[in-house]
Amino acid sequence: MVNYPNGKKHPSKDLVTSDSEKRKINYGRRGMFFEEAIDASNQYYLLNQIAVIHKRPTPVQIVKVDYPKRSKAVIKEAYFKTPSTTDYNGIYKGRYLDFEAKETRNKTSFPLHNIHEHQVEHMKAVTEQGGICFLLIHFAEYEEVYLLPYQHFEVYWQRMTDGGRKSITLTEIRNDGILIPYGYKPRLDYLAALTLREWGKING
Amino acid sequence: MVNYPNGKKHPSKDLVTSDSEKRKINYGRRGMFFEEAIDASNQYYLLNQIAVIHKRPTPVQIVKVDYPKRSKAVIKEAYFKTPSTTDYNGIYKGRYLDFEAKETRNKTSFPLHNIHEHQVEHMKAVTEQGGICFLLIHFAEYEEVYLLPYQHFEVYWQRMTDGGRKSITLTEIRNDGILIPYGYKPRLDYLAALTLREWGKING
Repeated sequence: MVNYPNGKKHPSKDLVTSDSEKRKINYGRRGMFFEEAIDASNQYYLLNQIAVIHKRPTPVQIVKVDYPKRSKAVIKEAYFKTPSTTDYNGIYKGRYLDFEAKETRNKTSFPLHNIHEHQVEHMKAVTEQGGICFLLIHFAEYEEVYLLPYQHFEVYWQRMTDGGRKSITLTEIRNDGILIPYGYKPRLDYLAALTLREWGKING
Repeated sequence: MVNYPNGKKHPSKDLVTSDSEKRKINYGRRGMFFEEAIDASNQYYLLNQIAVIHKRPTPVQIVKVDYPKRSKAVIKEAYFKTPSTTDYNGIYKGRYLDFEAKETRNKTSFPLHNIHEHQVEHMKAVTEQGGICFLLIHFAEYEEVYLLPYQHFEVYWQRMTDGGRKSITLTEIRNDGILIPYGYKPRLDYLAALTLREWGKING
């Protein structure tokens, strides 16, 4: 810690240790802060019997496993597989709920290459079965999280398929999505958005 | 192929190449036949827009990953984690559906050590949220698959917790469960059981 001769802290050093700066450091860990907030919220929902929502394990193709004597099996060769579904699903008030969470450092839009075609097909199938389906998109630069219902997302995906832009602009997301503020308990209360009037317009 | 002098096939050779024998060979691959039948049925449900049900990936703790130049990432060290949920979940007619599939070679009962306590807690939470929850139990010796609703399973789990037997007898499963016959399309039509009167008694 560098202090001025008058005993006050150097203002820039102050910034470095501020909460928002710590968050930015966390962002560097490939969206861990955002994911941890979702996981902590799911844990809160589970403990308070509000919903049962889990992250699906990362799909891995296991090629080689060793079974050493007197110790547990070790996977020695495996590969990451392209996910065919979204990352999170579960049950909320008896209904099936399904979503994908993505973070971007982009300041003006959400690039669609973040989403696989299989995932879109999955979200479409879920929506047709009457499930609640959406994306949670974190704009890291602004610390803003938006819940974008699949029905809106579909329009922009179709635009890209038709040869249009390969991203959704932040303005479009702010118009069509619902801002989820960071809080304390739960840290990211995305389920609250589902009771809003905006959501009712879409999912009836 | 060994034939009798009269041109007829040797009856025991006939047996060896019969369908049921092929199945028994498959059973040896740690329940792969049963799992494949479930996966194929889920694929059928998906393609025919009946339901969207997926197997969750095996949960793995990844410790070491190599990123070789010009080729994809290789997981070099990882461990199997104890699952905290069931293996399968999804959506059927708008409702959340969740189940665990287990195979036993036991001829008289289903040993409860096949199920982890975390999985029971998960199934209980799902049931309390209004989800459809059950176990699919394959008795390999008889080629019989039963759908046992969680509400019935819970009674036997409680019996064990209270110091009683550590298994559910086949007779109990035949009484409380619904037999799912092996078929063609889909190979294991477990969703059909959910429309039965027996299921209605439990889940209303």
